[in-house]
Amino acid sequence: MKTVRLSIIGFGAVGQGVAQSILSKHDYLHKHGIDLRVVGISDSGGCEVDTGGIDLKKVIARKKQTGTVAADSERDFDLISDVEHDIVVEATPTNIKDGEPGLGNMLSAFQSGKHVVTSNKGPLALCFAELKEAAEDNGVLFRYEATVGGAIPIFNLIHEALAGNKVIGIEGILNGTTNYILTRMAEERLPYELVLKEAQELGIAEADPTYDVEGIDSACKLVILANSIFGQCATYRDVDVTGITKITPEALELASKNNYVIKLICEASDGRLIVAPRLVPKRHPLSVGGTLNVASILTDLAGRITISGKGAGSIETASSILSDILYVARNS
Amino acid sequence: MKTVRLSIIGFGAVGQGVAQSILSKHDYLHKHGIDLRVVGISDSGGCEVDTGGIDLKKVIARKKQTGTVAADSERDFDLISDVEHDIVVEATPTNIKDGEPGLGNMLSAFQSGKHVVTSNKGPLALCFAELKEAAEDNGVLFRYEATVGGAIPIFNLIHEALAGNKVIGIEGILNGTTNYILTRMAEERLPYELVLKEAQELGIAEADPTYDVEGIDSACKLVILANSIFGQCATYRDVDVTGITKITPEALELASKNNYVIKLICEASDGRLIVAPRLVPKRHPLSVGGTLNVASILTDLAGRITISGKGAGSIETASSILSDILYVARNS
Repeated sequence: MKTVRLSIIGFGAVGQGVAQSILSKHDYLHKHGIDLRVVGISDSGGCEVDTGGIDLKKVIARKKQTGTVAADSERDFDLISDVEHDIVVEATPTNIKDGEPGLGNMLSAFQSGKHVVTSNKGPLALCFAELKEAAEDNGVLFRYEATVGGAIPIFNLIHEALAGNKVIGIEGILNGTTNYILTRMAEERLPYELVLKEAQELGIAEADPTYDVEGIDSACKLVILANSIFGQCATYRDVDVTGITKITPEALELASKNNYVIKLICEASDGRLIVAPRLVPKRHPLSVGGTLNVASILTDLAGRITISGKGAGSIETASSILSDILYVARNS
Repeated sequence: MKTVRLSIIGFGAVGQGVAQSILSKHDYLHKHGIDLRVVGISDSGGCEVDTGGIDLKKVIARKKQTGTVAADSERDFDLISDVEHDIVVEATPTNIKDGEPGLGNMLSAFQSGKHVVTSNKGPLALCFAELKEAAEDNGVLFRYEATVGGAIPIFNLIHEALAGNKVIGIEGILNGTTNYILTRMAEERLPYELVLKEAQELGIAEADPTYDVEGIDSACKLVILANSIFGQCATYRDVDVTGITKITPEALELASKNNYVIKLICEASDGRLIVAPRLVPKRHPLSVGGTLNVASILTDLAGRITISGKGAGSIETASSILSDILYVARNS
């Protein structure tokens, strides 16, 4: 039995999803020879530490009741650098202005010799090369499956399952909110504003939808993909971005009459990075509806491989984080 | 640099594809620290052995010229058991009557302490549990990515990329020939016999198409999937199989009018194994056309993940074999 100790930094929907998944997978993990112990959890209210392994049920309940994981806020140490453990699960919210607090957390983890598993796009969309170098310099692993495509194991697919293949290009739908809006507009022939309101009421779009509808979220994910696959050093500002706010029901109807749909497509090939609404044939593998995400990878040997799945959700994102944790447990 | 020595048993389209891929990936492999040497190749005419590494270009040319890899047929030793190497790539043709010669080759490889990577469905559709046990007893790896879904890395996806997930059920289109026939029948409103003839002329269907159109090939693949994922001990005879020979253009047209397509769907869930033509909504992820294969995997955490790609082809199959070889090289 291999004991793997981890911390969870940020205890919102994703962090709690990770804790729930670890709880529900206790027997599975033991069967695979892994004793996974969460030794620290922090949120904006403070942190909980137990080097023997935190009682996750109790902490989840406390978070629900009091709004924080901290039993008391009087601790004067740094969870990431001061508490001995193996993996830092960085699950603080994405900030694309300066990447903080995720960026600092990740660099601090690397410097103290800890592997990082993250769902936080901000630091990777801004400083991918710097983070990768910091991980390599410190001889630790850096895994970020959950940053792109939610539950879809896209990096694992490309780097492990398609090992031996050269990726020539990649295109996909990497934002579920805009896919939902375009799908509903096409199906119901409703204007953008009305469908956006519906999406906001359903919790699919945020109160300020800019980040999604202007294609910024898609651009961040495309940059992470391109940097990881092609070894580029792009930031999200290098992406040529057009959002979906100017798509009309009339345009969607015209497309449909010609057997096309309009989708917000991310594309990386030949060093170009583009996010823009594009016509996609209805029977094309990229034509997936609702909030689904999809990625189509063109390779030299395997040809085109297309994978789709849920692009968001607490447990779905936790699935990607868990597979990264298992990868680190097996390869460190 | 890690030296990995392998043999290729069977030098038809797949075996030659593997040799071509190894040739074209020489630099890639070296960059990843792997010195891959083919030390033996055999076909029905004999074998070529060079413990220092065979000149693959020369052997491929000889095979094209003389029909065999053998420079002379006077060797009286067994390539698999007598020549020292690490991996046996078993690429002889599928035989679903008794699995031979693949079954004997694989067992012989395990007994002599060699890992097996294979594209040969026959032995796995008949004796999966026996083969798995033989590999475990001898402490070697057994990889068979190329047996199901051609270029689609479905086993890698499920066992590695979706690690931590429990697979609840799986459904898919696992035979490109029948998918091509049904797609063309629907698109051109042509009868089965005519489209079958077209497929035979294009080399998509074989002269005796029974194995594909009666669903036997699909059943073999479904059994391998189910055994690998659910730990079942099924053989292809346990599958409830219906082929596509009774599908009419009228049935396809009626389906189309109601926004459905008819596909030969393989399904494994709750211990049941079924291959049968089924109505699939046109916009469902399983509705892929042409010769494409697709698999949709329902999991507990990640939800439904769907992956599609080319189900056949020499280089595409070699891609799956190569990823398995790399897995063995990294994990042995």
